[in-house]
Amino acid sequence: MRRPNPPPVGTAHHTTRIEALTDGVFAIVMTLMVFDIRVPQAPPEQLWSELVNLWPSFLAYAISFVQLGIYWIGHRNQYNFISKEDHTIRWITLLFLALVAFIPFSTQLISNYPTHRVALLVYGINLIVIGLVLYWHWHYATSERRLVDPNLSPAVVYIGVRRCLMAPAAYAVACLTSLSPLPIILELYALIPLLYLFPGIVERLWPVPARLLDKEANAQQE
Amino acid sequence: MRRPNPPPVGTAHHTTRIEALTDGVFAIVMTLMVFDIRVPQAPPEQLWSELVNLWPSFLAYAISFVQLGIYWIGHRNQYNFISKEDHTIRWITLLFLALVAFIPFSTQLISNYPTHRVALLVYGINLIVIGLVLYWHWHYATSERRLVDPNLSPAVVYIGVRRCLMAPAAYAVACLTSLSPLPIILELYALIPLLYLFPGIVERLWPVPARLLDKEANAQQE
Amino acid sequence: MRRPNPPPVGTAHHTTRIEALTDGVFAIVMTLMVFDIRVPQAPPEQLWSELVNLWPSFLAYAISFVQLGIYWIGHRNQYNFISKEDHTIRWITLLFLALVAFIPFSTQLISNYPTHRVALLVYGINLIVIGLVLYWHWHYATSERRLVDPNLSPAVVYIGVRRCLMAPAAYAVACLTSLSPLPIILELYALIPLLYLFPGIVERLWPVPARLLDKEANAQQE
Amino acid sequence: MRRPNPPPVGTAHHTTRIEALTDGVFAIVMTLMVFDIRVPQAPPEQLWSELVNLWPSFLAYAISFVQLGIYWIGHRNQYNFISKEDHTIRWITLLFLALVAFIPFSTQLISNYPTHRVALLVYGINLIVIGLVLYWHWHYATSERRLVDPNLSPAVVYIGVRRCLMAPAAYAVACLTSLSPLPIILELYALIPLLYLFPGIVERLWPVPARLLDKEANAQQE
Repeated sequence: MRRPNPPPVGTAHHTTRIEALTDGVFAIVMTLMVFDIRVPQAPPEQLWSELVNLWPSFLAYAISFVQLGIYWIGHRNQYNFISKEDHTIRWITLLFLALVAFIPFSTQLISNYPTHRVALLVYGINLIVIGLVLYWHWHYATSERRLVDPNLSPAVVYIGVRRCLMAPAAYAVACLTSLSPLPIILELYALIPLLYLFPGIVERLWPVPARLLDKEANAQQE
Repeated sequence: MRRPNPPPVGTAHHTTRIEALTDGVFAIVMTLMVFDIRVPQAPPEQLWSELVNLWPSFLAYAISFVQLGIYWIGHRNQYNFISKEDHTIRWITLLFLALVAFIPFSTQLISNYPTHRVALLVYGINLIVIGLVLYWHWHYATSERRLVDPNLSPAVVYIGVRRCLMAPAAYAVACLTSLSPLPIILELYALIPLLYLFPGIVERLWPVPARLLDKEANAQQE
Repeated sequence: MRRPNPPPVGTAHHTTRIEALTDGVFAIVMTLMVFDIRVPQAPPEQLWSELVNLWPSFLAYAISFVQLGIYWIGHRNQYNFISKEDHTIRWITLLFLALVAFIPFSTQLISNYPTHRVALLVYGINLIVIGLVLYWHWHYATSERRLVDPNLSPAVVYIGVRRCLMAPAAYAVACLTSLSPLPIILELYALIPLLYLFPGIVERLWPVPARLLDKEANAQQE
Repeated sequence: MRRPNPPPVGTAHHTTRIEALTDGVFAIVMTLMVFDIRVPQAPPEQLWSELVNLWPSFLAYAISFVQLGIYWIGHRNQYNFISKEDHTIRWITLLFLALVAFIPFSTQLISNYPTHRVALLVYGINLIVIGLVLYWHWHYATSERRLVDPNLSPAVVYIGVRRCLMAPAAYAVACLTSLSPLPIILELYALIPLLYLFPGIVERLWPVPARLLDKEANAQQE
């Protein structure tokens, strides 16, 4: 006689807690990055120039904040469609958060060594890996429609994939550039977020395949 | 044949996550500001006088905390009416949070240099910009009733605008004062929150135009 | 003709955000207190004794954590009954949180100066004022049943008052003791939480007046 | 005449706040651990080797993060079944959180003294006690089905117990090893999480007793 499976202890039909933990980690990381920027202990007449000298810190903070915003929105958007959580998705999210929690470290690295190749690579790789994990998260949840609505349209899945892979691809280019002798990498890092702030650009550069959209249209007509 | 738009990935009909992120950032910023005040490492017989010497830090903390409270309540009140979120409102909120996360930095600046013009200006500008972004947030959400109830009364919109612009206006005055030789700016910073703690004052100084209220009354009579 | 009031912008019929902000501040304060305890930088053979020397920090942390727990539960319990929020209750909560955010500071003070009268007084007064603000919070919400169910039983209100005032009363005694030459105050601080951990003690020492309970019983019989 | 009990002030039929506080503390602890890893202040040509020298910190961070993930998921899973909260469960959770908040301290201890017996023991005991408190939490909630569905299956209770006790048992072994002269303890700490990442291993090593599953099956057939 076959013994029945024990009831599943781990799966749940709401995702409140995983989202709350994510929001908490992002809120703290966003705030701690500024906390790393120390107020200069200078004689009053030099305060202004000391503040101006902090510009690499302010720039690095701004870039990282925008990047965190992109990833937070990315994770948040996935949960517009993910309606269940299981053991695996939780651990993927925890891996994602562990890497996000590293951003203050790598941000401080590039703000202390703004032209150092090692610092730029560590920062770039940190961002690339976060993007790849976010892609894995989406792939796991949508393949076989595991944790999403079984009728989720392929076009939505495709757009989600594009969103996740766009940043790692762009950062990989920026990282490669940092191996060249050209001193333009920080500028590249600063440009990448534009792709996300103005999603129209992406839609033109990397459109959703017509095939998927036609399927969508047919489904709507039936 | 016209191809249909891909389904919107970004819009959502609840605003839980954006509110949770905001609450998280505010909670951390409010707490970290005190964390910046270090316990004096003094011989026991000087402990009391050392604590008393910390008063600029305590005052700066109190002013900033009240100011954060004003902005938190302001953002929170807007979400009494905003019922949807889209790509743009998320980025406006993220910009808002990035500036809020700077408050511990500028607070420490004025508590270290309580009479220094640069410190006072940085602090004032930080607060002004936060207020303007909060105004932009409200304007974006309510113009064409984009993310709010289509029947939202114009008087409510007006009150929201007043609430957002009041603080930047007052801080701009305080900043201008700091360019004069009068040493009264910190006192001004301390007075501004009274406008928010006792909203009756504002209603008397800057009433809602009768025109808008009459429209309201007519709408209620019909 | 009388002009109608503008619609109330500030009142809301749910208290999610005020509770989320409170939970956030408490979570951070609880965690930051330990963060203040630095790992000793000692040669390996002295590590154990250096850790043992940290005991005033560990004790102060434990006492403060329990105290924070008492106040968090107190605030949380009030929101079992409070179902609306208005302008005033938000500012009372913000004042409450500003004082809670001071606990890491005053905890570090007593852990650095565990026998110093000033440190003990600052810590005690911090705790007393938090308790009084929590009482004000409850009083404001329940008087005239302002933000609670209009039929809330007087016995519940009474129990809430007792809960809020118990701690300040006990800490006031502890503070007075610290003015005497007896070195027992830290022990007193450590004993007070027992009143909250074992609520049976309180019910015996300070029972709810029979009058209120009888009214309750009559109401239930009808 | 017997006087009726005062209405229960403390019990509540939702557990939102206790879960929010837990998520907050975990989010902060996870993030603060990385914050403890300081960017090296080295001359540029030594940056890479200085970063490599930080490996004990990175390893300790990774192990602790996974461990925190295990405990967070453990607590979260219990609340799949716990639907009420009372005075006692709140204090058990607060004790749990107080110990969780200690993890950055003990993590920094082993990352500063990666081969020191005292550091390894403190870290191990911290983790063991957290696991035992989590077990107590589950035991309290499920015994006499106090805070869970009265029909909760015994197999689910059993699986929860196994989940809570597995980690303390494994860490106890690791601690005992640290008393031996073999230098393998950090490796053991790193291996333990595998039990949780791949729950299939556990099901094979420590199956749910057939008796409980049969009862389950019978119940399903009726």
